Amino acid sequence: MKSFFLATVAAATLLATLPAAAQFQKPEDAVKYRKAGMFMMNTHMGRLAAMAQGRVPFDGAAAAASGEALGHLSLLPYLAFIDSNSGAEPSRAKANIWTERAKFDAAAKKLQEEAAKLAVAAKANNPEALKAAFGATAGACKACHDDFRNP
Amino acid sequence: MKSFFLATVAAATLLATLPAAAQFQKPEDAVKYRKAGMFMMNTHMGRLAAMAQGRVPFDGAAAAASGEALGHLSLLPYLAFIDSNSGAEPSRAKANIWTERAKFDAAAKKLQEEAAKLAVAAKANNPEALKAAFGATAGACKACHDDFRNP
Repeated sequence: MKSFFLATVAAATLLATLPAAAQFQKPEDAVKYRKAGMFMMNTHMGRLAAMAQGRVPFDGAAAAASGEALGHLSLLPYLAFIDSNSGAEPSRAKANIWTERAKFDAAAKKLQEEAAKLAVAAKANNPEALKAAFGATAGACKACHDDFRNP
Repeated sequence: MKSFFLATVAAATLLATLPAAAQFQKPEDAVKYRKAGMFMMNTHMGRLAAMAQGRVPFDGAAAAASGEALGHLSLLPYLAFIDSNSGAEPSRAKANIWTERAKFDAAAKKLQEEAAKLAVAAKANNPEALKAAFGATAGACKACHDDFRNP
């Protein structure tokens, strides 16, 4: 359990050292990349939501797999929010991402921390542990979406 | 290093136990999910290719981050190749994925194994180690694309 968390933190540290704007050949590729990561996270959050809310039976293996995926995926999209949006690829990102960058980065970091905890909790084969960690992660998603994503 | 590799193998084992068809609410969501994962993998392979082929200077931190991302991402798209393609979302997947499933699964496993090795090699801050592991991973990508992806 601990090893995954440490690996997660190490990866986040590495990502934070990269010059973000240099990572994408075209601006629209950055938008596509972050949308891809968000779609994959949404898929796994949807699976966990169904279990956490009792709409489907708790499945320990499925919960663990989706938690693990979220721990990894949460590290990836944020450095793809480079300087601005691209007109070539539609995006719901709000312009205040770039005018309130420190606040955005803190919100992204909060999500990464909650997702790392969720990855651990989801392996416990315990519906209540999953529910608590899922709720905290979903709250971190929503807080950032409320401030930085268009409806 | 070893801890990440073991976590990778554990996650792959977990994913392999899930009933794939039950994981997506709509068939087109499975297509979107695997395309999202492939796009993200392609982004990171592109960055490593530029370094491995000498088109950009070697950057140890960037290599490590992309290697780590690929180790994680390589685990995710394959169980989204459920029963068939969906007409609602374009896909380059060939029909023999479903008629030659064991061969497809072996090709996916090969990619996951090479990507796990790449994740380790990319942390060595060594251009030659990166180049070798990148080449093996790119070969696993290509072998599967040649057999199972339309041009």
